[in-house]
Amino acid sequence: MDYATESLKKHQEWQGKIEVICRVPLKTRDDLSLSYTPGVAAPCLEIQKDINKSYELTRRGNLVAVITDGSAVLGLGDIGPEAGMPVMEGKCALFKAFAGVDAIPLCIRSQSVDEIVNTVRLLAGSFGGINLEDIAAPRCFEIEERLQGCCDIPIFHDDQHGTAVVVLAALLNALKLAGKSPKEASVVINGAGAAGIGITKLLLSLGLKDIILCDRYGILCAGDDALRPIHAAMAKLTNVNKLQGGLAEAMKGADVFIGVSAPGIVTGEMIRSMNEKPILFPMANPVPEIMPEAAISHGAFIVGTGRSDFPNQINNVLAFPGIFRGAFDVRARVIHEEMLLAAAYAIAAQVTEEELSVDYIIPSALDQAVVPKVAEAVACAAKAIKEARRETDVET
Amino acid sequence: MDYATESLKKHQEWQGKIEVICRVPLKTRDDLSLSYTPGVAAPCLEIQKDINKSYELTRRGNLVAVITDGSAVLGLGDIGPEAGMPVMEGKCALFKAFAGVDAIPLCIRSQSVDEIVNTVRLLAGSFGGINLEDIAAPRCFEIEERLQGCCDIPIFHDDQHGTAVVVLAALLNALKLAGKSPKEASVVINGAGAAGIGITKLLLSLGLKDIILCDRYGILCAGDDALRPIHAAMAKLTNVNKLQGGLAEAMKGADVFIGVSAPGIVTGEMIRSMNEKPILFPMANPVPEIMPEAAISHGAFIVGTGRSDFPNQINNVLAFPGIFRGAFDVRARVIHEEMLLAAAYAIAAQVTEEELSVDYIIPSALDQAVVPKVAEAVACAAKAIKEARRETDVET
Repeated sequence: MDYATESLKKHQEWQGKIEVICRVPLKTRDDLSLSYTPGVAAPCLEIQKDINKSYELTRRGNLVAVITDGSAVLGLGDIGPEAGMPVMEGKCALFKAFAGVDAIPLCIRSQSVDEIVNTVRLLAGSFGGINLEDIAAPRCFEIEERLQGCCDIPIFHDDQHGTAVVVLAALLNALKLAGKSPKEASVVINGAGAAGIGITKLLLSLGLKDIILCDRYGILCAGDDALRPIHAAMAKLTNVNKLQGGLAEAMKGADVFIGVSAPGIVTGEMIRSMNEKPILFPMANPVPEIMPEAAISHGAFIVGTGRSDFPNQINNVLAFPGIFRGAFDVRARVIHEEMLLAAAYAIAAQVTEEELSVDYIIPSALDQAVVPKVAEAVACAAKAIKEARRETDVET
Repeated sequence: MDYATESLKKHQEWQGKIEVICRVPLKTRDDLSLSYTPGVAAPCLEIQKDINKSYELTRRGNLVAVITDGSAVLGLGDIGPEAGMPVMEGKCALFKAFAGVDAIPLCIRSQSVDEIVNTVRLLAGSFGGINLEDIAAPRCFEIEERLQGCCDIPIFHDDQHGTAVVVLAALLNALKLAGKSPKEASVVINGAGAAGIGITKLLLSLGLKDIILCDRYGILCAGDDALRPIHAAMAKLTNVNKLQGGLAEAMKGADVFIGVSAPGIVTGEMIRSMNEKPILFPMANPVPEIMPEAAISHGAFIVGTGRSDFPNQINNVLAFPGIFRGAFDVRARVIHEEMLLAAAYAIAAQVTEEELSVDYIIPSALDQAVVPKVAEAVACAAKAIKEARRETDVET
């Protein structure tokens, strides 16, 4: 199928992939008086007394805003807020279809961190959570961090954390097949944008020690004055042996390659220089860092990509719907790292021991059974955190 | 029915009066590839080339944001953004149920004009129109004016313009019954907030000459240094005879009283002092400026209120859904006064000559036939304006 032509045609037909509908009867005078004036004053006053009631008496508790500035949309780059909308609507459609989460896209006409943060902060009372999407790095990190500091609802940057969760899920199963321990695995991550940094952080929080992060100029190494602040910070947390050089140097002896970078930059030689049973996740989209057949011909043990036409598709849709579903189900205020790890384990566990094979390390993006499992795991982790914090009297 | 108790119970059951649903199939790989990556890149690139395509390729062209700061919600006052949400959701439900317009509530956590304007301005690319709601005067006027100056989509403050349209519709029919010409009628408007000022402006634009606007301190009179800027501006446009005094003085000899103020402030004596066949629209909610039976016992010819349990309910729901439907149908960039006048005439015309009586001057709020008529009239007026401006080469 010619997806581009067909998709454009479909979008013209659909006139929007989401729709706002009315859930209440509005046919009689009594209907109007209950949904609107004068009856509606009663729920208003309840919320005025206790803002938490807004989660029960309005749609807020099930509603995510999918927010972008249109600056890093798919692989298309800075196409602007309006042009980013079809992607955001697609995301919202997936939220609903996969997890019953209501989601609406808000495309912000600004690339100023202050303006984006302020806009979202002022709207936080209308939503149960915020999903940041396709905002260019390094702006996205500051926006997320500042919003987490000033909003009372979960802030989730899917390009970082959603990607990290599915990569970790795939990695856990791949390492199991390779007979390697996650904490002892050496991992090279190529691409130091939102996804690369999100993956690195989550692997670190799981306890991995030997991670090398590369950008287009090569290995990030602490002490390099040319690094941007976010890269300098990541360099301090990774590359314990202070290795210098390019991707080829990084990959020598590595157990795992994770690519969130550019098409075709991994060579057969690089794969042959890796440790035994090398695992490769070349996830550049639509053209991966190396094509799966080529990778396997050079000795790759397991290959996962972002594409649906190869085995082991590593797709965020396995993560974000269930993560928000779980967070909403227990009204979590923050999506903590423990919740992300729980999500990754739940996705990995969806592949049974019997099913697990080099061509099946991660469930299908269309597997309807994944979301409830992820949601349950996330909710459970959130409750555990809440309990633990309650004991120390700190609000989560 | 005890609307307060019952409404609260219903709101607990509903958990939101609106819902975001998914309009596209998402069951197969192809579904995902068309709605989301990689196919979705095609509509994105189309919009990047021409932002107007966002009206066809996303939901934007049918989507209103209902925006409040929660500062003047119903008669409840400044209850805050979250507490205002049930009213905003009710409005959104009405938009959909009556006119098929998608609408979502955005409650802004700020009462600063700058912050509200900036928030809405930055989000304007996500919506086809903005409905401002329950924002306190005089802030609401500045917000509306500034947004009209900086947004490329219709900005509509329903408390002003929606109210004005339904009042005018009722007034046109009432004056017809009384055998009086609109342009020669003398009108007293009590209440100089958003509604009172909106009504005054629309009556002026229809060509009425003799309008007196009163606030709680009495008649607004040009030259009074104590007046706030917006009231000073209105005083210059009204009260041609420079009358001074209170409501009692204003009503002497008047043909029409329009109340958007407070319960019980109109006396029998005031009505008896009016011109023959006096028309009274005491619309304070839920308790009007004078109860209909009392008004009639003192000689009122026609009485209309905001309540559904008396004849002649003057309810905004007759106006705003059709106004946006019409504006969206022709993708109007601005809701001009001509479009408001057209809406008022369309509502008035929905009552046939045969039906027209002192107890039936305006269609029922539940009359499904009104919205398409209003939409058609508004669209037609918008097209006429567009044509006229095109001739003079000015973009509408």
